[in-house]
Amino acid sequence: MSYTPTPADKFTFGLWTVGNLGRDPFGEPVRKPRSPVELVHLLAEVGAYGVNFHDNDLVPIDASSSERDQIVRDFKAALSATGVVVPMATTNLFSDPAFKDGAFTSNDPTVRAYALQKTMRSIDLGVECGASTYVFWGGREGVETDAAKDPLEAGKRFREALNFLCLYAQGQGYNLKFALEPKPNEPRGDIYLATVGHALAFITTLDQPDMVGVNPEVAHEQMAGLNFLHGVAQAWEMGKLFHIDLNDQAPGRYDQDFRFGAVNIKSAFFLVKFLEDVGYSGSRHFDAHAYRTEDYEGVKAFARGCMQTYLILKEKAQQWNADSAIQALVADVRGGDQAPIAYSPQAAEALKAREFDRIALGARGLAYEQLDQLTVELLLGVR
Amino acid sequence: MSYTPTPADKFTFGLWTVGNLGRDPFGEPVRKPRSPVELVHLLAEVGAYGVNFHDNDLVPIDASSSERDQIVRDFKAALSATGVVVPMATTNLFSDPAFKDGAFTSNDPTVRAYALQKTMRSIDLGVECGASTYVFWGGREGVETDAAKDPLEAGKRFREALNFLCLYAQGQGYNLKFALEPKPNEPRGDIYLATVGHALAFITTLDQPDMVGVNPEVAHEQMAGLNFLHGVAQAWEMGKLFHIDLNDQAPGRYDQDFRFGAVNIKSAFFLVKFLEDVGYSGSRHFDAHAYRTEDYEGVKAFARGCMQTYLILKEKAQQWNADSAIQALVADVRGGDQAPIAYSPQAAEALKAREFDRIALGARGLAYEQLDQLTVELLLGVR
Amino acid sequence: MSYTPTPADKFTFGLWTVGNLGRDPFGEPVRKPRSPVELVHLLAEVGAYGVNFHDNDLVPIDASSSERDQIVRDFKAALSATGVVVPMATTNLFSDPAFKDGAFTSNDPTVRAYALQKTMRSIDLGVECGASTYVFWGGREGVETDAAKDPLEAGKRFREALNFLCLYAQGQGYNLKFALEPKPNEPRGDIYLATVGHALAFITTLDQPDMVGVNPEVAHEQMAGLNFLHGVAQAWEMGKLFHIDLNDQAPGRYDQDFRFGAVNIKSAFFLVKFLEDVGYSGSRHFDAHAYRTEDYEGVKAFARGCMQTYLILKEKAQQWNADSAIQALVADVRGGDQAPIAYSPQAAEALKAREFDRIALGARGLAYEQLDQLTVELLLGVR
Amino acid sequence: MSYTPTPADKFTFGLWTVGNLGRDPFGEPVRKPRSPVELVHLLAEVGAYGVNFHDNDLVPIDASSSERDQIVRDFKAALSATGVVVPMATTNLFSDPAFKDGAFTSNDPTVRAYALQKTMRSIDLGVECGASTYVFWGGREGVETDAAKDPLEAGKRFREALNFLCLYAQGQGYNLKFALEPKPNEPRGDIYLATVGHALAFITTLDQPDMVGVNPEVAHEQMAGLNFLHGVAQAWEMGKLFHIDLNDQAPGRYDQDFRFGAVNIKSAFFLVKFLEDVGYSGSRHFDAHAYRTEDYEGVKAFARGCMQTYLILKEKAQQWNADSAIQALVADVRGGDQAPIAYSPQAAEALKAREFDRIALGARGLAYEQLDQLTVELLLGVR
Repeated sequence: MSYTPTPADKFTFGLWTVGNLGRDPFGEPVRKPRSPVELVHLLAEVGAYGVNFHDNDLVPIDASSSERDQIVRDFKAALSATGVVVPMATTNLFSDPAFKDGAFTSNDPTVRAYALQKTMRSIDLGVECGASTYVFWGGREGVETDAAKDPLEAGKRFREALNFLCLYAQGQGYNLKFALEPKPNEPRGDIYLATVGHALAFITTLDQPDMVGVNPEVAHEQMAGLNFLHGVAQAWEMGKLFHIDLNDQAPGRYDQDFRFGAVNIKSAFFLVKFLEDVGYSGSRHFDAHAYRTEDYEGVKAFARGCMQTYLILKEKAQQWNADSAIQALVADVRGGDQAPIAYSPQAAEALKAREFDRIALGARGLAYEQLDQLTVELLLGVR
Repeated sequence: MSYTPTPADKFTFGLWTVGNLGRDPFGEPVRKPRSPVELVHLLAEVGAYGVNFHDNDLVPIDASSSERDQIVRDFKAALSATGVVVPMATTNLFSDPAFKDGAFTSNDPTVRAYALQKTMRSIDLGVECGASTYVFWGGREGVETDAAKDPLEAGKRFREALNFLCLYAQGQGYNLKFALEPKPNEPRGDIYLATVGHALAFITTLDQPDMVGVNPEVAHEQMAGLNFLHGVAQAWEMGKLFHIDLNDQAPGRYDQDFRFGAVNIKSAFFLVKFLEDVGYSGSRHFDAHAYRTEDYEGVKAFARGCMQTYLILKEKAQQWNADSAIQALVADVRGGDQAPIAYSPQAAEALKAREFDRIALGARGLAYEQLDQLTVELLLGVR
Repeated sequence: MSYTPTPADKFTFGLWTVGNLGRDPFGEPVRKPRSPVELVHLLAEVGAYGVNFHDNDLVPIDASSSERDQIVRDFKAALSATGVVVPMATTNLFSDPAFKDGAFTSNDPTVRAYALQKTMRSIDLGVECGASTYVFWGGREGVETDAAKDPLEAGKRFREALNFLCLYAQGQGYNLKFALEPKPNEPRGDIYLATVGHALAFITTLDQPDMVGVNPEVAHEQMAGLNFLHGVAQAWEMGKLFHIDLNDQAPGRYDQDFRFGAVNIKSAFFLVKFLEDVGYSGSRHFDAHAYRTEDYEGVKAFARGCMQTYLILKEKAQQWNADSAIQALVADVRGGDQAPIAYSPQAAEALKAREFDRIALGARGLAYEQLDQLTVELLLGVR
Repeated sequence: MSYTPTPADKFTFGLWTVGNLGRDPFGEPVRKPRSPVELVHLLAEVGAYGVNFHDNDLVPIDASSSERDQIVRDFKAALSATGVVVPMATTNLFSDPAFKDGAFTSNDPTVRAYALQKTMRSIDLGVECGASTYVFWGGREGVETDAAKDPLEAGKRFREALNFLCLYAQGQGYNLKFALEPKPNEPRGDIYLATVGHALAFITTLDQPDMVGVNPEVAHEQMAGLNFLHGVAQAWEMGKLFHIDLNDQAPGRYDQDFRFGAVNIKSAFFLVKFLEDVGYSGSRHFDAHAYRTEDYEGVKAFARGCMQTYLILKEKAQQWNADSAIQALVADVRGGDQAPIAYSPQAAEALKAREFDRIALGARGLAYEQLDQLTVELLLGVR
């Protein structure tokens, strides 16, 4: 099997990922900026399917209307020339000092209004470039001290903004889905809607919940030490896995956005296996960036590595599903009549009266050590 | 102000909390067991309002029917004698080896059936003792390796069990609400429904979501480094704060279940302030236990400390709400017309065309340092 | 008691702390730069004793020699005018892209040589301004992948650099002590000498260990969830607490550098109590910065808050030492003959033969719940 | 290559590892106890080289002298019969309630004396069975509140105990080395000597530092999110890597003691590579246990898995060292004259005057993304 990406793999990158300059809280940029057009060509060169962007990745916040139009024309020409598509767009509501206390949840109603305006314009831009998914990362929607903001108010404001924007997108006739991207902290001390779970719950309180799903990111859940797969599975079962951000991250640290699979190969494997097994058909978006030690050759190695590792793990998932020893263990442990017990008063009474041999239930070995060890050996390529 | 607890404070403890023997993964019990009756008297002595229990805190798992009945009679007599009430009950689905791979989500359908049976019986017991809230902590509903269990299957099984049990409780004519208690890990490597958010989302997928809410626990969210207040506020806004477990915990560690306020005074303050400000009227349940260095005098000091700290922080919350310097800062930052913008095509167009001075928005100082420092000084008793 | 800082309190700030512009990985600066001279005046206004700096906080990396000299003259004039002193200086070995893979531990010997040069020049600058302590924070001395750098080589290179610089400082006749500042991660994936412990151990391997101590920082140890007090106590006992960086931080997150006491009042209290009890006489350096929501009024509130909280906690420490109920508990638990058992063959044999009542030892209650609760109540100002 | 363990691999397990009963804070034992003799045979069956033990793993705390002697005879007979050896022993100073506030650092001098006695007797037992390394894990040497214990006192007491025991071992004529095993928390809120670094520093303050080294454990450092390899490398360079505990652990959680390589394959790889590259010749001790879902067949699968994964990773390390593409990248980045600059006044002056092109230094790409990706692909078996 070759690990060369094809459009069918739906591998996408943000302009901000391969265009990341390597600036961090303690250091200056290490790479010279490349234009959106140059980045599209870089992505085409490494074999990516699509490119996503924040409004200001493409159009500077202070661009004039004619500058904007010229930029968009050039960008679309590059898309045409390369075949790269734009599946997703999003708004930068975090870089400008105006949003230092949040955008949709800011205490200042003028900031909230400005955030709505900026998002409407950015939605227009995204749709114009072909986006069918629109992501909301509320990176500044939070606090450093709970003295500063009422969490109930913040929730209401966030909801009002999303309700407004759903109507806006529909009013414009856009065929667009929204995807909320949760994160627990950084750049704020605490960010509202901290995890995939919080976002899924919040969506059910919106006026138009069908239009809104989630965009889980590996690093964001792992920052809180959560099992990413479990959150993704919950989103999938609720029909809400509208997008996904792949990268990697050591738990309990600053947001690292490492190359997919760079930290934990095993959890990356179970994630890829899940996405492939259930038939997830959306973008595999790599929201990551190259180490700050790299030049643009390193950026390309980074981008290729993300896709290559995904494809290797996809192949491993097929092997796992076909491995007879593994499948025998799985079948054994998942055996028995798996049909649920339907409630009726009679069924309940019968169940209450049933005799169970709890000692025997507890004594049975489940062979999960063996199953996990076989998985590790399969990953290591020695099966 | 006196900090003596009264029934109106609704301070409750589990039998397992003041009855905790001080066993841990590396050490044997340090305290001799006390009977449920003795523990009810201990709780009455320290001024608690109520006592909660798992089925097997009260009735041993292998008790005969007549033993059970005698135990319940004695327990109810102690309740009558002391005035202590039972607001909540729950099932032990984690101690017995039968549940080593989970109860409702076990791969083994016999274990799942046994878990249903045990819960029905335990619900009967709880209701018989007066409980109106029934808690589900799925401590074993998880995995050490994602090779072992399909997270989609696990979600379905969990849902089937809760749907069944809702019908059961209604069929019995019980006036009972269910409250799910999330936890990210320990004793399993990863536990499903890891946070308040995941549980809130899951509830919306049940057949009878109105009957089910959450029981957030301070320590469980803080283990994942999450802001507990934010999760509680989201549950409250969704009408789902059916119960709450108060204790304390250093982030990123084993489950510590420390005395309320023992780790982070400031976050405990914002929590108490929230509960009092919104008028939460349920139990303040302390799901904690004394250090392993303590005898039963230490257990009493622990229990008194939980309640005392809550009452002190409640008083501090009133002071905060009445502090003119603090309130002036709050009013200033939350000023302006706070009414949301209602969507209409015209409103959207007008907003898109509006001119914002983003430089000015970004330049405004928000005085949160001052606000937070005043809060710290208020907590330290020097305002 | 007034909480007005005096020079005897030895409160210092870095130019980079009150001069922090509020830039973060996701956002642009929110405050306009102020010159070193302006910052010295700001610090004088809020009552600080001293100001510390990195070479490039004061002199831009590309300043000419005459520019440098003019800047230093102006800075020293501001010091004279305000009475603010410079107890400590340090080198910026992390902002410039040249140091992207480390300075003293870079794989590139030219980078290592440049780092030595920059540090020598910076030591000259610091000493010229009055510094008697020189801090080394090896923020870039680490890796994102252990494929990149040999940890043994890194240790050797770090040692060689420090040995060289000790000789340099002595050769110049400087009366200077070095203080290593550990940190576990950020901006690198993993930083060498991750904690106070690792730094203390490393110092013992230097050619001139007496000249080198540590500069522990609250946030850096708490990022790893470690008990800061314990590391500080170990450093103190080894005679190595040459400097200290005070701030605050939620565990398991990005480097927050919050106002001292802003996160965990109780751990801040035990730290202040320790420093005051043992008679630590060095700088109380606040290595923190104002929230990004603040203007320069907020920066001043932040700086005043750091000092005010320290002084309040110092007063609380005195109260704790004088509180008869607390002291009775302490005396009781620390009672008995505390003299150690001196080894001799006879003493060992006698001890081996001695009979112990381990049941009685285990049964004794230690009243730590009560002791800790009294501490919390003292902190809350209700004792 | 076969992955069958041989004695030359020096794979050892504790009696407490394969004999672990699967008890945890929330659940009862799931496996029936096996005698030390049975466990020795189990270890022989799976191919282990050695077995280590705490005194009370072998001899119950309340055994009579004659019971002890019979147990030891039986155990030694099993060793002889199987060829399994005892390279290491240690003391259980954590299970009994007597040690609930620590052993060597307890506030109670009688407890400290009892801990010394128990350790002397346990050293005798270990040496009698052949141990040449003696481990000290101070699992209870800590606090839940810093009100309870003076960290300076704790350090002194710990040191006195070790100094005493060094003399004791020498006095008995034992050829024994001591190895301190650090851990940050659990079962205590905070444990003294939290990391490998703290232990290494502490050793330098002992009367006989040459006799004492460290026993780093993967899980213990990873609980604090630290890079385990870096701590091991520092211990190695200081000549202090006297023993090592291999297992695995998700960061920021309860102590999991998972099968080696079960969580993070990549960090396990760099660890094995280091140990093999430097020629570490001590035990590879697996301080881990089977999941609680397992019976004794699962325990054997667990033990075999630990060894198998080590051997696979050892082979991968050889491949890495021989991979020409990887080695070319390594050579390129580590190129140039690596000799350190020797200090002399003239050398310092020359270096201060040297001109560096810092722009060029910063612009160079280091190809670490490529190097890390090749490592991942090698691990996945596709190179």
